[in-house]
Amino acid sequence: MASSVGIADYMIERLIASGVRHVFGVPGDYVLGLYKKLSDSPLEVINTCDEQGAGFAADAYARLNGLGVVCVTYGVGGLKVANTTAEAFAERVPVLVISGAPGIAERTRNPMLHHKVKQFDTQRKVFEQLTVASADMCDPATALGGFDRVLDAVLRYKRPGYVELPRDMVAAKAPLALGMPAGAGDREPGDPAALAEALHESAERIRAAHRPVILVGGEVQRFGLEQQVLQLARKINVPIAVSLLAKSTIPETDPLYMGVYAGALGDEAVRSYVEESDCLLLLGVLLTDVNLGIYTAHLDPGRSIHVTSERTAIAHHYYEGVTATDFLQGLIDREMGQCRLAWTKPEHLLTNAPAAPEAAPITVQRLFERINAFLECDIAVVADVGDALFGSLDLVTCRAGNYLSPAYYTSLGFAVPAAIAVQLSHPELRPLVLVGDGAFQMTGMELSTAARYGLNPIVVVLNNGGYATERPMIDGPFNDLLPWHYSRLPELLGHGAGFVVETEEQLLAALSEARANTASYSILDVRLAPDDVSPPLRRLTDALGKRT
Amino acid sequence: MASSVGIADYMIERLIASGVRHVFGVPGDYVLGLYKKLSDSPLEVINTCDEQGAGFAADAYARLNGLGVVCVTYGVGGLKVANTTAEAFAERVPVLVISGAPGIAERTRNPMLHHKVKQFDTQRKVFEQLTVASADMCDPATALGGFDRVLDAVLRYKRPGYVELPRDMVAAKAPLALGMPAGAGDREPGDPAALAEALHESAERIRAAHRPVILVGGEVQRFGLEQQVLQLARKINVPIAVSLLAKSTIPETDPLYMGVYAGALGDEAVRSYVEESDCLLLLGVLLTDVNLGIYTAHLDPGRSIHVTSERTAIAHHYYEGVTATDFLQGLIDREMGQCRLAWTKPEHLLTNAPAAPEAAPITVQRLFERINAFLECDIAVVADVGDALFGSLDLVTCRAGNYLSPAYYTSLGFAVPAAIAVQLSHPELRPLVLVGDGAFQMTGMELSTAARYGLNPIVVVLNNGGYATERPMIDGPFNDLLPWHYSRLPELLGHGAGFVVETEEQLLAALSEARANTASYSILDVRLAPDDVSPPLRRLTDALGKRT
Repeated sequence: MASSVGIADYMIERLIASGVRHVFGVPGDYVLGLYKKLSDSPLEVINTCDEQGAGFAADAYARLNGLGVVCVTYGVGGLKVANTTAEAFAERVPVLVISGAPGIAERTRNPMLHHKVKQFDTQRKVFEQLTVASADMCDPATALGGFDRVLDAVLRYKRPGYVELPRDMVAAKAPLALGMPAGAGDREPGDPAALAEALHESAERIRAAHRPVILVGGEVQRFGLEQQVLQLARKINVPIAVSLLAKSTIPETDPLYMGVYAGALGDEAVRSYVEESDCLLLLGVLLTDVNLGIYTAHLDPGRSIHVTSERTAIAHHYYEGVTATDFLQGLIDREMGQCRLAWTKPEHLLTNAPAAPEAAPITVQRLFERINAFLECDIAVVADVGDALFGSLDLVTCRAGNYLSPAYYTSLGFAVPAAIAVQLSHPELRPLVLVGDGAFQMTGMELSTAARYGLNPIVVVLNNGGYATERPMIDGPFNDLLPWHYSRLPELLGHGAGFVVETEEQLLAALSEARANTASYSILDVRLAPDDVSPPLRRLTDALGKRT
Repeated sequence: MASSVGIADYMIERLIASGVRHVFGVPGDYVLGLYKKLSDSPLEVINTCDEQGAGFAADAYARLNGLGVVCVTYGVGGLKVANTTAEAFAERVPVLVISGAPGIAERTRNPMLHHKVKQFDTQRKVFEQLTVASADMCDPATALGGFDRVLDAVLRYKRPGYVELPRDMVAAKAPLALGMPAGAGDREPGDPAALAEALHESAERIRAAHRPVILVGGEVQRFGLEQQVLQLARKINVPIAVSLLAKSTIPETDPLYMGVYAGALGDEAVRSYVEESDCLLLLGVLLTDVNLGIYTAHLDPGRSIHVTSERTAIAHHYYEGVTATDFLQGLIDREMGQCRLAWTKPEHLLTNAPAAPEAAPITVQRLFERINAFLECDIAVVADVGDALFGSLDLVTCRAGNYLSPAYYTSLGFAVPAAIAVQLSHPELRPLVLVGDGAFQMTGMELSTAARYGLNPIVVVLNNGGYATERPMIDGPFNDLLPWHYSRLPELLGHGAGFVVETEEQLLAALSEARANTASYSILDVRLAPDDVSPPLRRLTDALGKRT
């Protein structure tokens, strides 16, 4: 057995073993050697136009695939993915950032090499703020251990990590450790006594409750707990709502599925049922402002059992060392009997059969109704930030995992690059991108990347001429955008199909043509009135208006 | 006299007093209140498509105007300008980053507000790595002092600074300090004894030299020392070469001007004269790898006097407390007599009268020759990174300040957003952008911003189908790009004029039409052979080839 291994070879092997098949990035001279290695490996390198696109794509890939990798050059590459790495941190996404760097042999007497900022470790210091673990692989003796430590932390904590590989270390040989690396993503051991007590107390509360509800948060998908949650819900007959960040974690057609709970943003029936529950089982829920409908939510901690990857709270006291997996399994294994289900699904707004086509101008509400009717099991919705996100809340996807959005960190420009990753990781899915014109002007050109790799997302641009969600807060010319002719993007890229949509009839025709166009991406320029908003955003605005 | 003032009002007043007229950025809810204030002030807010564009534009603005400002929202905005701020740090550019932030009143019990990464101070910690000074303006009692400290450091050290303004502090009243703020950019006091000794020693060396040369670096422009340098050069009759980062700091038609010194990248006559000099006066030169022609340069420290903003070195010893201004003035005031000028300007390659138009395919060399002939005194060249930068080295601009490039940090995507800032700060200038296709795919869509504000840069895309400067290092599919139809961008944006250029005749026609098109930007898609490179890059490649 080999006692040493090339550093890059080792990294590639571990990435493949962790289920990675695609790496996103833009090459640069400090990372070219690694690109060559990647390119010659079973991994596929996906070149985006800008590093930002690669960062968003790697994030989306990680959400769907369990690990995503973005590979960039030093400084001018690495620092361009600071924001997307922050997104992965905030939303608990296992992304590994690999950055090239000047060779160790080049660093004698601290020369001013291009792409250098202050010191050679400046970029790593930046990423220490944005990741759960980081390592510079400057010394073959410790390089593999550093890489293992970062990769394992990424997989365990579902947060981004950072490794920096000097270009003269790519082919350097490093000693293999005696044993195999620690199992990727192994859980930390729990505290059995604390678990037993927490389970006992929780079971009592659930048994005593008249109207228990499960609220599922973003961590459930990240930590792969979906099946346990469903098993528990079915066993005790308790309905399930989800936070916006967890939309589509639970199949939205499941009889126990209620809808998205997001304070006033969400459906009123879901909201009142959740808020009036006498036993609220919050599973992996991040109590973010957006998830809570900008604080229009009213969740009583005194009636809650709140399990996250970091701790478990029952009412106002906390348990350490109680992992979500153990806790869920403990509840499933216990005999608690079935609850009487007090929830009846209301007639959902968007599931109403849509009226006949109209020549009238398209509205945001009708756009989402039509899109809802358009969804099939092979369509994955990717929502960007703004009313594209709010409006998508009411959509009903037919399969778990068919929805993606950065609903907490809410960085504009996520959706187009994310759609690329959705289709690469799940070629059987057709991404449907909902994106505002502001977000599209940031990263929409990554449709070039879609075209390059033969992908065919359907992109719906909600074109209302500006940052429409900001207008009701404070308006001014700074909320305006230059009106691009989005449907003419194919002329610039030499690929794709474009549509102008001003009426409902045109929308139906364009969606149908886009569906049939499997050869390339399709882009729909949906022209909306500047002051028109989606029903969820209207609900929220009304509630906020009442509050002041 | 008012004893208190609104915080944002104070900031705006100080920016205006420092010569700022435009602020670049993208609004977001945490910074909307400040945007409203800016919008209602004499400052003009320039909205870019993406924050990256705003960051590059603010950097270019600062180079030309003495101070540039980029104003962004928290997290999703701030972290997107990490890279452009790093560029400003590396190349000594006075950029102020202003970020909005959640209000202080919103932070009780550390809530999960959108755009938050780890803690509320995470973004500030990132920018501490990338700036010379930073402040969070969380307390009215210290906010103005913090702002003054950062702004003064930016102006004094010509490095970026960072301030973070919580949204509930925008209109908050803060006490005015008793005195006026310290004079912006005041120099630190020097050490007169060290200065006298350094001057004496330098004067002796210059007097004794047979072939003294001045080499001007990037700091000369930043610290406003151009006139002193010219005065000194004329007084002692010494020729002047410049580093690539300082190109066009000295008028390129001045009789004492030699050309760009950049090791093997530059002209051979300039190179040998500089390297054989027995007294090399390096003024504000950053000894970077690109400036040194990837270490093909041979500058002997033993024969050098090297003055930078940080210290002064003569041969192998150093002086502290000797400022460049005092040092230059001391030399000017001293009687040293005139040197005998041994330099005679060689016939410059690009100043040869170009041959008649040809129908043959355009080459990189002929492209730069034609562009050189096209330059007039109102044209400012903005070169992006790659062969656009290397090729531009031989261009001769007719006025100082008519050339801009990020020649040290070399971040792709600088030029298009920079051109916007060039024309806003100097409306009498017409920017000529030289940009590779790779860089254009990153930030070229900021031509939308040019169109929005009625600017008319001429953009020459060096379209060779990929990252051409990387191909000779290590090639692979990762160096390829999707071939956009760049000339059709006007169809997407609804503004602009596009041209396809395959021959020299077409180039001449397109340049002439672009010159006449003052209503909008013009874009020339110049189709080059993938393996064709500029004469400077060929010189460098040959030299590197000989070395190995």
